[in-house]
Amino acid sequence: MRMDELKQFIENCDNVTILTHKNPDGDTLGCGFALCRCLRLMGKNANVINNDNFPVRYSFLYNDYYVQSFEEQTVIAVDVADTQLLGSRLAEYADKIDLCIDHHISNTNFAKNTYVDAKASAACLILFELFSHLPVLIDDQIAMCLYTGIATDTGCFKFENTTPQAHMACATLMTFNIDFAKINRKMFDVKTKARIKIEERAMNKMEYYFDDRCSIMILTQETILQSGLEQSEFDGLASLALQVEEVQIGITMRERKKGVYKISVRTTEEVNASEFCAKFGGGGHIRAAGCEISGELDDIKQKILKAAKEVVVNI
Amino acid sequence: MRMDELKQFIENCDNVTILTHKNPDGDTLGCGFALCRCLRLMGKNANVINNDNFPVRYSFLYNDYYVQSFEEQTVIAVDVADTQLLGSRLAEYADKIDLCIDHHISNTNFAKNTYVDAKASAACLILFELFSHLPVLIDDQIAMCLYTGIATDTGCFKFENTTPQAHMACATLMTFNIDFAKINRKMFDVKTKARIKIEERAMNKMEYYFDDRCSIMILTQETILQSGLEQSEFDGLASLALQVEEVQIGITMRERKKGVYKISVRTTEEVNASEFCAKFGGGGHIRAAGCEISGELDDIKQKILKAAKEVVVNI
Repeated sequence: MRMDELKQFIENCDNVTILTHKNPDGDTLGCGFALCRCLRLMGKNANVINNDNFPVRYSFLYNDYYVQSFEEQTVIAVDVADTQLLGSRLAEYADKIDLCIDHHISNTNFAKNTYVDAKASAACLILFELFSHLPVLIDDQIAMCLYTGIATDTGCFKFENTTPQAHMACATLMTFNIDFAKINRKMFDVKTKARIKIEERAMNKMEYYFDDRCSIMILTQETILQSGLEQSEFDGLASLALQVEEVQIGITMRERKKGVYKISVRTTEEVNASEFCAKFGGGGHIRAAGCEISGELDDIKQKILKAAKEVVVNI
Repeated sequence: MRMDELKQFIENCDNVTILTHKNPDGDTLGCGFALCRCLRLMGKNANVINNDNFPVRYSFLYNDYYVQSFEEQTVIAVDVADTQLLGSRLAEYADKIDLCIDHHISNTNFAKNTYVDAKASAACLILFELFSHLPVLIDDQIAMCLYTGIATDTGCFKFENTTPQAHMACATLMTFNIDFAKINRKMFDVKTKARIKIEERAMNKMEYYFDDRCSIMILTQETILQSGLEQSEFDGLASLALQVEEVQIGITMRERKKGVYKISVRTTEEVNASEFCAKFGGGGHIRAAGCEISGELDDIKQKILKAAKEVVVNI
């Protein structure tokens, strides 16, 4: 689908249900509520739905959102790469999606119409362009949604996926009345006490190998239970393993249930995380990948260390 | 001084010594090495100097820098708000500064010519504009210096001082061959083991008061010595006290010598840090200020808690 076709689709659609992905993040929710508001400003009916409850953490995106009553005619998925990511509650929509707007190169083309821009830092960046072609003016609320999606998906403009376009869009979005500094504090700096506690314990127990080129962080069920941390609060914990400058591969071993470890691997440019995890039946991205291994903690650790020793690079 | 006058000054000057501020950060060094390179590309002689050694942490900014030999004719200070910030080694320059380029509203006008733009997120942003008026093309190295200054002074575009202009400039600078993601990892994510250790201990000992609206972090000399942390590694430690969502005032008490505490105060929009510290003879900015108090730890703590109780806001 081209941008002009996408524009036409949006202009012609009505009574829209917008699907966001499960375990929702700033980009999928930013897209959902920005598109919903845009459609409503155009005089159309629209709702946003999700497999889970909308997280309180993102409540500023939907503070003035309300559910509309209408007979659904159009289903649009935003920032959804695969129907599996809709979650069980929205699974019934899997074969009924009229349009998908996404930025994942892995998009499985499940929708009747698909607009994918894999170079876009965030799906919200696609909407930013789309909205400039529509007969509607962005307002403060929409600007806040789009800014949040772009900022969160780029790690506040820190990651490799940040583009000049992302900066340009945010330069424009900042001219609206949005408290971007407060949003960024909420998204990037603020932590729950439980999260602080588990980070502290994790860092305390961090082990370093091969002249600090490899770090291993072990989170047993006991540690996790003691911290009181909820499942949703584990996001980003794996990246702590890369904090020490020399580390090229940071490995987090989280005990999901007795004797079953979820292994999260984060790497710097010297090491391919995806290839590393493939050795253990897992996969993922080049700098962030994962796998699952069952067995005795010490055996698993030795296996992983042996593999890590082969991939770290002497500088 | 207006921008056209600044341009004229730079075009007409030669044999330039560029002064950067002591305890140098990304902005002053980014400015220094970018301006030096720009002047050299214009066929002029220029050197950059600092009170301290250029920190290894910023070595990517000066990897291909070399000292030139010439008879000094012009002295330019960059990102220097006050001659006191030059440090003792450069104090002799205090009354010999021909031009100061700065973005601090507190600039004391110590130079013969001063260009201050207090709205600029970083002094590097002023240079970015200046260079666009000069008969010289920015190269990769200059782009890297300017990007680093802007990114570091805005907390990677996270802080209130980030402007649309900062984003626009970085959109342009990213089109050069610079590894911005690597720079950002180095500037914002990477920590020494000693730093990780002291953060862990500090968070471990963090105390919360008044329904978590006030946090206090105490770093005794013993804790500091045990961590092996160097003076320069304390940057940003105070901001940890604001990590918990409800906290409105985060107070760090660092024992500088036996019985003497450096108090760093960080606040969210509910509390004025500068006014708070003024009560104890200190001062600073509205969200970040400090003071020094001598006495028994417990007495100091009680005094501070009493004052904090008066300023935190019930939500």
